Amino acid sequence: MITTPLNQLWLYDTTLRDGTQREGLSVSIEDKLRIAHRLDELGIPFIEGGWPGANPKDGQFFQQLQQNPLKQAEAVPFCSTRRPHTKAADEPMLQAILAAGTRWVTIFGKSWDLHVTAGLKTNLEENLAMIGDTIEYLRSQGRRVIYDAEHWFDGYKQNPDYALQTLKAAATAGAEWLVLCDTNGGTLAHEVSQIVKDVSCQEIHQIGIHTHNDSEMAVANALAAVMAGAKMVQGTINGYGERCGNANLCSVIPNLQLKLGYSCIGEHQLSQLTEASRFVSEVVNLAPDEHAPFVGISAFAHKGGIHVSAVERNPLTYEHIQPELVGNQRRIVISEQSGLSNVLAKARTCGIELDKDHPQARQILQRMKKLESEGYQFEAAEASFALLMYEALECRQQFFKVQGFQVHCDLVEVEATTNSLATVKVSVNGKNILEAAEGNGPVAALDAALRKALVNFYPQIADFELTDYKVRILNGNRGTSAKTRALVESGNGQQRWTTVGVSSNILEASYQAVVEGLEYGLLLHFQAEKLLKV
Amino acid sequence: MITTPLNQLWLYDTTLRDGTQREGLSVSIEDKLRIAHRLDELGIPFIEGGWPGANPKDGQFFQQLQQNPLKQAEAVPFCSTRRPHTKAADEPMLQAILAAGTRWVTIFGKSWDLHVTAGLKTNLEENLAMIGDTIEYLRSQGRRVIYDAEHWFDGYKQNPDYALQTLKAAATAGAEWLVLCDTNGGTLAHEVSQIVKDVSCQEIHQIGIHTHNDSEMAVANALAAVMAGAKMVQGTINGYGERCGNANLCSVIPNLQLKLGYSCIGEHQLSQLTEASRFVSEVVNLAPDEHAPFVGISAFAHKGGIHVSAVERNPLTYEHIQPELVGNQRRIVISEQSGLSNVLAKARTCGIELDKDHPQARQILQRMKKLESEGYQFEAAEASFALLMYEALECRQQFFKVQGFQVHCDLVEVEATTNSLATVKVSVNGKNILEAAEGNGPVAALDAALRKALVNFYPQIADFELTDYKVRILNGNRGTSAKTRALVESGNGQQRWTTVGVSSNILEASYQAVVEGLEYGLLLHFQAEKLLKV
Repeated sequence: MITTPLNQLWLYDTTLRDGTQREGLSVSIEDKLRIAHRLDELGIPFIEGGWPGANPKDGQFFQQLQQNPLKQAEAVPFCSTRRPHTKAADEPMLQAILAAGTRWVTIFGKSWDLHVTAGLKTNLEENLAMIGDTIEYLRSQGRRVIYDAEHWFDGYKQNPDYALQTLKAAATAGAEWLVLCDTNGGTLAHEVSQIVKDVSCQEIHQIGIHTHNDSEMAVANALAAVMAGAKMVQGTINGYGERCGNANLCSVIPNLQLKLGYSCIGEHQLSQLTEASRFVSEVVNLAPDEHAPFVGISAFAHKGGIHVSAVERNPLTYEHIQPELVGNQRRIVISEQSGLSNVLAKARTCGIELDKDHPQARQILQRMKKLESEGYQFEAAEASFALLMYEALECRQQFFKVQGFQVHCDLVEVEATTNSLATVKVSVNGKNILEAAEGNGPVAALDAALRKALVNFYPQIADFELTDYKVRILNGNRGTSAKTRALVESGNGQQRWTTVGVSSNILEASYQAVVEGLEYGLLLHFQAEKLLKV
Repeated sequence: MITTPLNQLWLYDTTLRDGTQREGLSVSIEDKLRIAHRLDELGIPFIEGGWPGANPKDGQFFQQLQQNPLKQAEAVPFCSTRRPHTKAADEPMLQAILAAGTRWVTIFGKSWDLHVTAGLKTNLEENLAMIGDTIEYLRSQGRRVIYDAEHWFDGYKQNPDYALQTLKAAATAGAEWLVLCDTNGGTLAHEVSQIVKDVSCQEIHQIGIHTHNDSEMAVANALAAVMAGAKMVQGTINGYGERCGNANLCSVIPNLQLKLGYSCIGEHQLSQLTEASRFVSEVVNLAPDEHAPFVGISAFAHKGGIHVSAVERNPLTYEHIQPELVGNQRRIVISEQSGLSNVLAKARTCGIELDKDHPQARQILQRMKKLESEGYQFEAAEASFALLMYEALECRQQFFKVQGFQVHCDLVEVEATTNSLATVKVSVNGKNILEAAEGNGPVAALDAALRKALVNFYPQIADFELTDYKVRILNGNRGTSAKTRALVESGNGQQRWTTVGVSSNILEASYQAVVEGLEYGLLLHFQAEKLLKV
């Protein structure tokens, strides 16, 4: 057994399971894989990936994860106990989580007597057997088990003896973690504190906490539980979750680590928290909360003259933590210094070592700010940002130039068919090429026509593929005339890159991103391994 | 003196002062007057209206309020103490708050020695004199005084003796309330609890609490302070405020009143909390937070079949409070995990009393599941779900039928212009109509052409507007050929409804949602008030 320091806590992320319960959030398997790998990099030790027994897509997620496994983190599937009066070994749901092929599994069971009798319609003894049998069976199949005690706090308040019996059944059967869940989110911090202390007195070690935000207490409740002895904290990135969400790990982690002195993730990983938060919001296609604690764009924004000069003299007078510790930054309207260092940092990630005194550095910042005010966003579109920098540095190679395009769509309702036809005019090496192609949508047709026009000049384009395409309507209150932002992810088999386009015309926004995607792919091909030092 | 029950708390709203510090929020004087009157109706006893000495608009607000005074609440202007080495009577800022003509005023002063020496650049004695003189002067002018101790918690942690001296200076000069402010929002609940207890030991009665949300602890900190003895709670509606916001009164009030048994506002007033929250967000023109605790549209939303039948049998099993207590309502969400009970519950909210044994009920569920597996999502598109039900029940009225459409987009790169032209063919009452329209994007053009074709038959279409439009690409790994889901929100001035379309062609998906949006609007017009019983 590895000894761990006393202040070590274990984080358990459930963005990919409980987080996806948020209304309006839905993710593809690819989205889930990207998020899982990002959380792995962030240093989260347990990543709950889904409920394979309830949702076949979640089963596929674990299959695909086996092809490209996580580096450090344990991927964990989630499942309920066996149903009443069945055998655990015969339970298809449990076979599904075994098939996930993970070292750890999470099983949730009922703690509240009312849920057993009125919900499951069985007796209290059978519920204890369901918890015990299920965990024993999974242990016999070589799995390590985390037990989520559903409705723990409500159950304990109603019938503490029975609630404790359920925990003991799980512990006796071999569960290594007992996670107390505030499933309805109605518990307040002083109650969490008292109840976690009560449970700790029972000599049940390795307690975890899982809280919901229905009383706007999820983060406070998680902290209260840790201070009362819990060693595992479950939550989600950006607090995504059913109803009002789960405990927001983007607030829980810095509070625990920076204020209470617990150890959760590495210092360097903590400094990537803001980026990870925005990455997840981009992948799930939800606008980031600008006012989010710690990671929001407004979290360290300062207004007002005296205030700004004071914060510049001594940041501690107006900031509760140093924003850089969580990868965020102070934002002061009159000072562009922070913006410039951001540009330099970004340049480095694109392989460009740009000096802060380089005359073009400030110009890139201005151009980026202007584009961002128009709705462009470079957080998730590094390839477009690299092209912007190459252009400012006058080293953007022109592989081709699109002169214009036309798209035509025709839907005939009686035949229920839609045809899209695109024509493009492109000049390459001084030659004008006109090409047309069909596709099952206007963007697909446009992409096909562009490739057709370019592949004779650049045969490597045949290996490029468009791997993801996301559209977000900005200023939605202007209806279909609103601005549209398109993000296109492209790949060449080894690398992937993302480009962005913005326009009030959804096709033009998409076209911009598709064109830059092809251009950046060519750049990678011709400038591979070349580190620009400027 | 009126005797008050022991559990009475005083709420102090600062939406109109601290709330307006939120980035992106700006209000006119009329907006502020409307909000003040609404908060008065809600039963908030103190309403901070602004800082007349710093902002002339705030002075006008108080002038106008004198024409149309609040019924119950005290309007309160806010101001700092006098500047160092001046006389309070000569301070123009203080004249401005006297001119506001209110019974109560709030004065804030420095508690943290560092802010006195480094910020105000004066000595610690002078700061005490500034607090005392200012309050004495206002008392001599007949005002009752609330004292806000800025940076209280940080100051107390650094130099408790000096911090306590500032409070005593305020109390001695005649301040009736001493409000402890966590100005930087970095304090955790256990610290708030301990420090408020420390202050209470000093026999300083009438303590208030003012918290910020930078650690996602504002609500928890307010509750901790009350439980440690504070009797006034400051906060804002929807938690609006600088950076990450202030304590959200929409969460503070129900927690205090429904869970901790304190008395803040009347029971009937509490049942208007959700409406008040949405009213304020409408007036300040910010989209309401759908996931807000207590008052968000998702706060009592239920997914998942077993879950829904359980909540209908016994709401307490899955709801931490009765939603009606805060004027919110349970909402059954239609999603992938839905069972028959969700469909029936949802039908009821559409005005359709569907029996679970009705032959069509299971068919609706099957159809819905099939569509959802194709990428449709009815969670946020209740109008499309209603149309689906009407169709299954063979009572979907056909107002018009689209026979086909064509969209043409043309981008000329040299001119940097894009034109979109749409033509539609629609049959209404056996007549075929062909119409064309332009727009600054293909969907806008399509929407315009459809309205043009239909408005002569259905003049009420002129009142419909497209209020929001969202696009999401499903299975992104198929690139631009992937399926697209479009959600369209429409309105008629009184109601809003959302429809969904899915297709591999982004234009067709948008077209489906736009067409159903028009159809549902007509249905509302012609079938208003008609309850279908099947």
